Amino acid sequence: MAAAVISLWPNTRPTLGPPIEEGFYYDFDFGKDKISEDDLPKIESEMHKIVSSWKSFEKEEVTPDKAKDLFKSNSYKIELVDELQKENQPLTVYKSGNFIDLCRGGHVENPGQEIKYFKLLSVAGAYWRGSEKNKMLTRIYGTAFASQKELEEYLERRELAEESDHRKIGKELDLFVFSDLVGKGLPLLTPKGSVIRRELERFVVDEEIKRGYQHVYTPPLAKTELYRVSGHYPYYKKTMYPVMRVDEDELILRPMTCPHHFMLFKSRPRSYKELPLKIAEISPQFRYEKSGELSGLMRVRTFILSDSHIFTPKERAKEVIKDVIELINFLNGKLGFEVGKDYRFRLSLGDRSDEKKYFKDDKAWDYAEDVLRSVLKEIGAPYFEAESQAAFYGPKIDVQIKKVNGQEETAFTVQYDFVMPKRFELKYINEKGEEAEPVVIHRASVGAFERTMAFLIEKYKGKFPTWLAPVQVKVLPITERNLDYANGVTKKLTIEGIRADTDERNETLQAKIRDAQLEKIPYMLIVGDKEQQSETISGRGRSGKDYGVHPLETFITNIKNDIETKSLQ
Amino acid sequence: MAAAVISLWPNTRPTLGPPIEEGFYYDFDFGKDKISEDDLPKIESEMHKIVSSWKSFEKEEVTPDKAKDLFKSNSYKIELVDELQKENQPLTVYKSGNFIDLCRGGHVENPGQEIKYFKLLSVAGAYWRGSEKNKMLTRIYGTAFASQKELEEYLERRELAEESDHRKIGKELDLFVFSDLVGKGLPLLTPKGSVIRRELERFVVDEEIKRGYQHVYTPPLAKTELYRVSGHYPYYKKTMYPVMRVDEDELILRPMTCPHHFMLFKSRPRSYKELPLKIAEISPQFRYEKSGELSGLMRVRTFILSDSHIFTPKERAKEVIKDVIELINFLNGKLGFEVGKDYRFRLSLGDRSDEKKYFKDDKAWDYAEDVLRSVLKEIGAPYFEAESQAAFYGPKIDVQIKKVNGQEETAFTVQYDFVMPKRFELKYINEKGEEAEPVVIHRASVGAFERTMAFLIEKYKGKFPTWLAPVQVKVLPITERNLDYANGVTKKLTIEGIRADTDERNETLQAKIRDAQLEKIPYMLIVGDKEQQSETISGRGRSGKDYGVHPLETFITNIKNDIETKSLQ
Repeated sequence: MAAAVISLWPNTRPTLGPPIEEGFYYDFDFGKDKISEDDLPKIESEMHKIVSSWKSFEKEEVTPDKAKDLFKSNSYKIELVDELQKENQPLTVYKSGNFIDLCRGGHVENPGQEIKYFKLLSVAGAYWRGSEKNKMLTRIYGTAFASQKELEEYLERRELAEESDHRKIGKELDLFVFSDLVGKGLPLLTPKGSVIRRELERFVVDEEIKRGYQHVYTPPLAKTELYRVSGHYPYYKKTMYPVMRVDEDELILRPMTCPHHFMLFKSRPRSYKELPLKIAEISPQFRYEKSGELSGLMRVRTFILSDSHIFTPKERAKEVIKDVIELINFLNGKLGFEVGKDYRFRLSLGDRSDEKKYFKDDKAWDYAEDVLRSVLKEIGAPYFEAESQAAFYGPKIDVQIKKVNGQEETAFTVQYDFVMPKRFELKYINEKGEEAEPVVIHRASVGAFERTMAFLIEKYKGKFPTWLAPVQVKVLPITERNLDYANGVTKKLTIEGIRADTDERNETLQAKIRDAQLEKIPYMLIVGDKEQQSETISGRGRSGKDYGVHPLETFITNIKNDIETKSLQ
Repeated sequence: MAAAVISLWPNTRPTLGPPIEEGFYYDFDFGKDKISEDDLPKIESEMHKIVSSWKSFEKEEVTPDKAKDLFKSNSYKIELVDELQKENQPLTVYKSGNFIDLCRGGHVENPGQEIKYFKLLSVAGAYWRGSEKNKMLTRIYGTAFASQKELEEYLERRELAEESDHRKIGKELDLFVFSDLVGKGLPLLTPKGSVIRRELERFVVDEEIKRGYQHVYTPPLAKTELYRVSGHYPYYKKTMYPVMRVDEDELILRPMTCPHHFMLFKSRPRSYKELPLKIAEISPQFRYEKSGELSGLMRVRTFILSDSHIFTPKERAKEVIKDVIELINFLNGKLGFEVGKDYRFRLSLGDRSDEKKYFKDDKAWDYAEDVLRSVLKEIGAPYFEAESQAAFYGPKIDVQIKKVNGQEETAFTVQYDFVMPKRFELKYINEKGEEAEPVVIHRASVGAFERTMAFLIEKYKGKFPTWLAPVQVKVLPITERNLDYANGVTKKLTIEGIRADTDERNETLQAKIRDAQLEKIPYMLIVGDKEQQSETISGRGRSGKDYGVHPLETFITNIKNDIETKSLQ
């Protein structure tokens, strides 16, 4: 690519161009020239032309002086040479055809034969060495594969991911916004986005309460001391917000909920009769992610987790974890995430030899890992094992979700903890009347709500199941004459708790249908003179399906059933 | 009181004894003696004996030397004399009978006749001059009135307030706890207390959505800059948490929600068709109250407000405020707070001459005050006016709630704001297609949830209406034989969404009834052999009412109706 760019814009100075996860980029100083994505096909053609004549990448070790001479018209390369020299690193250049570049190496044998299936993807601005103080360069991104098929598959996945990007859809459907004055990574959910959040939250809370969870509300901050006692502070300090010192106090926003729930557990004596005690919370938490890692709702600086801490005798841990996995499969299934297809489990184990990272207690680790493994085996859950991925206080089961772009990511976890109960001196009175120490299962049941929303937006591309849709029904009067009837229909739906809206604009029916479809509203009810006279509606789905003419009551019964059962249709 | 204490314990040194809102106290150094509340009647008798012979309080102005001579055996009084001398203040002593004390004066004419109706209330420890570095003294609290009737009324109110104290009841019913490790003023709601919070929250959200409010979720912190733009920072700085500085950012926990909602309003262009636009939020907020002002759930350092900001053309402000007052009366009425009886309104006006405290715009103040006053008049709301109580950005209506002890307190407010729209350049497009500036109505619909819970606990003394009760039904099996049937009843109730529990203990029925009553559970269902055979229950209310034997289904229908209508019975 660099050779092609220089061939087309001879005054261009190439700077740095490393490989990255999805391909490569190269940063150029185009001088007075300007290029855009429209130029990419031209560059690609030139690349094909040039590379087809290349037989090899010829390596040469050079002295700093020779390197400086080779790149004497390129101050960027000279800066790099100086740096490598200072670090006493060997200097190598590679040559192909007329092109020569400073390079550490790692190339295909026969470029003319092997470099064929590539594509330039985008153009962006980037500061030299990433610093705002330096000049802004032009970065060209591209990718390459070993076969045409692999390239096409990648491009297809990429297009799908771009179309499904929750940031793009979130903007189009007005689900959330960011504000410079509020701050990076701090999303504001609009009324529409908030409907999804509220429905999710109530769904999770109601289902958990049904299953014996005790939901609580605890403050989202605490004395720093609490995280010193828990031992979290040294591990999480980097991503915690700074300490707030005021009067005699030192407070900090919480990065997790466990110690608060421990304080509730300890607030009165506990008996074995109460165990397993499942304290749960829709819990606001705060982690100061690096600004480069922030991404829409996927990675934010404050999030809400459906968190829980289950206090149980060690002997009952297995049944507790089985119930948790069952709940996870149930809740996520209701959202349309299928176990085995959309997500699988990872059993994350500790490294016994790393006493710094993992609490030393081999017997406890053995027991805990056995419990987790046997649960996954017994229920036939799809899982794999990963070394050295445990928490410092015990092994865990990670829920690995598959993103639209095919990559897998840990969405949330179930952790077995035998350390915190010791640190916090958690006790209960067992059947024999003696003091005993419980273990704690830390778990989420869906991921952080922000992230789950991002996954849902991408999965459904905004076409949410009816129960989650911000607006469930749009009533479309065919003419002005039908406006009153339309508003009456909307009112009846609203009274029934259905989120409905009338399109009151003076537009054609076609325009109204098109806009309702763009808004991805599950149902359009078209009402004209005929419907008005017969007190019916003419139903239409967002994908164009015609449901025909029905009495309004029939539609209400059907949609309410859909909503109550949380149908995914 | 001091004379009586010295008469009974001659080695005691009296220190300082000022009047306070509810009576008076005096701090004594009892030396080696120790007294308790058991000694109060003895002191009272002595007081009656001594004061009946007193004819007057004789004033005498004295030199510092004479004063020091008079109190030579009391180092505390000498310290006070030195201090007054340093400040060049006149020194006066008052004499009655054998008793003489350093005193600024302000006494009844004829103590023997006029000081009869008093009562000593309590004993507490208190450091000399309030400093932990000084000696701990013994403080005796008391009160006095002009008539026996007034004294009795006061004592009755006091007893009621003590019995109803939400901190006492909250502990007895396990509704909330505090933790030293979490921090002062940061309550942790237990599962039981959380039921009340959740029910309140859902009730408010659902009702507001029905009335066209658009509920959102915004982050509980923002850049400090946001509060500089809003102008809140200088006014609220003292009660705001400290700034968190990290990387390039300066963040702060929010003390109010308005600027976040303004950012949502500004996130896209707005048309008059959308107005009045009612953005609402169950909003976590943070104010660092002084530790001396913290009190249970009544005054905390983080709270959740049912907040809203209504963006409206000025001309429609009146109808908006009328709707708001109507909503306040509806919601609070459902909680059992009656307008005119439990609360009334205060119209808080600005002081036009104080340009530092109130934004200068006489015409806007006139208009806004007129709007608020005319709404209160038109709907016949009980209200009074108060000067110089407005917000800096406009006048407001305060909801003044009457506490159990008879005192009135501002629970929450409705504010008319013509300043923020200017500061934030809020705009909408009016009917003529021109840019126009809305006014903002800031309002809560119930108070902060923590505080509303405190009021509810005190109002109902823990006997919450069924819909709010943490446990609604306790099923009491008469014998072990009936345990399975009892658990079946509990299960059926739970499936119907009723919060029910079986008393599984091996106790007498009397003990089970007594404990359910202590827990203030609305309904006890007693089930013995007879009920088991006929699939019925024998109902009993928490105040002892016998509801007789009914089929379980009948009970379910009735209690569900109570819950759905939010009956106050």
